Amino acid sequence: MKPSIPKGTRDFSPVEVTRRTYIFDTIKRVFQKFGYQPIETPVMENLSTLTGKYGEEGDQLIFKVLNSGDFLSKADAKKLEDRNSKALTFEISEKALRYDLTVPFARYVVMHQNEIAMPFKRYQVQPVWRADRPQKGRYREFYQCDADVVGSESLLNEAEFVCIYDEALSNLGLNDFTIKINNRKILSGIAEIIGKPELIVDMTVAIDKLDKIGYDGVVKELIERGFNEQDVEILRPFIELSGSNEEKLQVLRSSLRSTEIGKKGIEELETIFSYLSAFELKKAKVELDITLARGLNYYTGAIFEVKSNEVQMGSIGGGGRYDDLTGMFGLKGVTGAGISFGADRIYDVMLDLNLFPESAVISTKVLITNFDANAEKYALPILAKLRAEGVNTELYPSSSKLQKQMKYADAKRIPYVILIGDEEIQSGQLTIKNMISGEQEKLAIESIIAKLA
Amino acid sequence: MKPSIPKGTRDFSPVEVTRRTYIFDTIKRVFQKFGYQPIETPVMENLSTLTGKYGEEGDQLIFKVLNSGDFLSKADAKKLEDRNSKALTFEISEKALRYDLTVPFARYVVMHQNEIAMPFKRYQVQPVWRADRPQKGRYREFYQCDADVVGSESLLNEAEFVCIYDEALSNLGLNDFTIKINNRKILSGIAEIIGKPELIVDMTVAIDKLDKIGYDGVVKELIERGFNEQDVEILRPFIELSGSNEEKLQVLRSSLRSTEIGKKGIEELETIFSYLSAFELKKAKVELDITLARGLNYYTGAIFEVKSNEVQMGSIGGGGRYDDLTGMFGLKGVTGAGISFGADRIYDVMLDLNLFPESAVISTKVLITNFDANAEKYALPILAKLRAEGVNTELYPSSSKLQKQMKYADAKRIPYVILIGDEEIQSGQLTIKNMISGEQEKLAIESIIAKLA
Repeated sequence: MKPSIPKGTRDFSPVEVTRRTYIFDTIKRVFQKFGYQPIETPVMENLSTLTGKYGEEGDQLIFKVLNSGDFLSKADAKKLEDRNSKALTFEISEKALRYDLTVPFARYVVMHQNEIAMPFKRYQVQPVWRADRPQKGRYREFYQCDADVVGSESLLNEAEFVCIYDEALSNLGLNDFTIKINNRKILSGIAEIIGKPELIVDMTVAIDKLDKIGYDGVVKELIERGFNEQDVEILRPFIELSGSNEEKLQVLRSSLRSTEIGKKGIEELETIFSYLSAFELKKAKVELDITLARGLNYYTGAIFEVKSNEVQMGSIGGGGRYDDLTGMFGLKGVTGAGISFGADRIYDVMLDLNLFPESAVISTKVLITNFDANAEKYALPILAKLRAEGVNTELYPSSSKLQKQMKYADAKRIPYVILIGDEEIQSGQLTIKNMISGEQEKLAIESIIAKLA
Repeated sequence: MKPSIPKGTRDFSPVEVTRRTYIFDTIKRVFQKFGYQPIETPVMENLSTLTGKYGEEGDQLIFKVLNSGDFLSKADAKKLEDRNSKALTFEISEKALRYDLTVPFARYVVMHQNEIAMPFKRYQVQPVWRADRPQKGRYREFYQCDADVVGSESLLNEAEFVCIYDEALSNLGLNDFTIKINNRKILSGIAEIIGKPELIVDMTVAIDKLDKIGYDGVVKELIERGFNEQDVEILRPFIELSGSNEEKLQVLRSSLRSTEIGKKGIEELETIFSYLSAFELKKAKVELDITLARGLNYYTGAIFEVKSNEVQMGSIGGGGRYDDLTGMFGLKGVTGAGISFGADRIYDVMLDLNLFPESAVISTKVLITNFDANAEKYALPILAKLRAEGVNTELYPSSSKLQKQMKYADAKRIPYVILIGDEEIQSGQLTIKNMISGEQEKLAIESIIAKLA
């Protein structure tokens, strides 16, 4: 039997784990700097907690866990006979794998509302599962890396999300990336003045194509998607929106002056930009983009999306404000806002740009070779000494051929090897080889410690 | 609808996550120091990978994942009609949650044998799932924290496991704990000279009770468990085994001189103790304990178990050598040895002994209060400056009552609060309050940075 793993899942090798850990730790460190604290929730949630939260299609993509024991004993006879898989699911399965971190977070807030100090700023870095068709860059098991705040309406939170993206991605070595920002209320305002709120998504999708298909192309697409000539005339300033964020805001102020919700959206954006003017961003560009319509059914205020300008890749982050996260579990009136980092894509971007530092490989710093029983005995206290000084050290565990031992050091990317033969034992001067440069020198153990510690 | 989580699972609050992270990080750091590297495997494995590896009872405790889509369409009609849950499981479920980290590790080694440098030393810290009846200290989702080496027969590995336990648990602050060590071959040797290999477990269980029930009690139990008077006479030196490890070894050498496997076990122990004499242990006591029979069907050489002597608690670690880990997946002749830390129990021990340092709570270092719009505006560059210096800082996101803001700082265990009112803005001397001592002083921002950074 040749073993395999379920499609859409992955094993992570030591190099991959340490690189992923480097990404997660860098992001977590920034979350913490901004006052976010970690929580963890179980991999399995009650199926009833998850169903109905992701739309009908989402419900189909939730991995359900079979009840333990004699799960069929109480199953409905009719459903069994009809082979009604969908209906039977709820009789033989009470638990499921979490589909995202947002619903479990909402569930957490409601369950622990009496222990939580509001505003509650939490981050969560855990895997989620979706029974999607696997394809390049899309997995059935993948990590989400979220920070959310609930119980605070302040737009300072939104401004700080921009800072978090900026600092985390800059710290990871990204040099050129754009944080796009929009506001659902502006989109609502536009839809209001046209009188076609139901076509919000069609509208944004069409406008978004200006760069690719030009003004006439956008107009054609708008007509195809259910807008008329008159609508297009009203939409013209929004389609042609360009320039700096301030220039765009000026156009919006004038075009949306007749809609209360539109004006509210502009005001919110102005407040966020005003906060941001007090903070110095490292590498991020911030761009007002009214075509951004990410998760539109969900967000009620700011909407974010982050893209690398150095590598062709989908968004590497996104988020926004939602006004009623915990309502689904009966706790009304708790506003929230959150962002997410796309760790898998960030990994690919960093690999592409060669941004992983050598230190992002956890490995042994020095391997002591093992020539024979005598050399091994001599090596033991040296091994202990190096470790006591905090140096990751291995003694090759048996007296194998030197070539094999060197190959082992290479495979593990161990940068130094200490060679101990009869000569070294007699003189106390150990040969230390730099595996990258190939250089060798003879040093006393104290000097080796000084070199490696 | 009042939300809940599946029984036997847990949410972890910020304080709990950071304490658990402290434990895991401390252990991982030691694993790395000894040349172990991390891998991660998927939460779901193919059901066929897991079944048949944990005995029939274990198979029942594996959580199975329901196939996606119309899982009943191809199910066997007879099995459906008979409501044969057990047989139907394999028709409607192809995936399952991992039950431990050992079988996935074996699967990993076989699948990746061409990329792996042997000896392969890996650690893995991930959750596992068992459909056990939940009870105090036993969960359906819990973390395992394992280090294993495959492809090396050297007993240096066993000696280093003792060092790893010693260093990790000492670093966590444990002061008095015992690493018990035994060897399966010694037990086999004893069973060989009695001629009752099938009663190995009964024998060790009975002998283990000497402290509680005395010599006569042990003899009574041995008789009940199928031994006769003559057996008991042969067993006497083993029952009465006491003294130092060297004294025990001496008795074993004499009692087991007629059994090859027994002598091999003694020789292995001697080699391990000889390696250990070259290493200085920090806090651990090492005790040869021939009643240790942990996972007897599994281990073929050394057996380990770790217990705290400061707190009444089950074992906080265990492991041993197994000679044919990957044989179940068709790769023969790969020997291995491994240990595991019981993170949940270590957590309880540390809580009991108050061993978690304050630094094991990730939180904000300083909260800046928010009196009004003017003070908020003044605070923004201060917020940015503190963060630029690496200080975890929050500005309370709205101008709420001071009492509410102080309560927030208390709830999050934030040690410092900066109060900015009109007076502070005018003088540039900010009030900083130590939330633990209650002390307040007025300092310029530079001095505050110097104090907190």
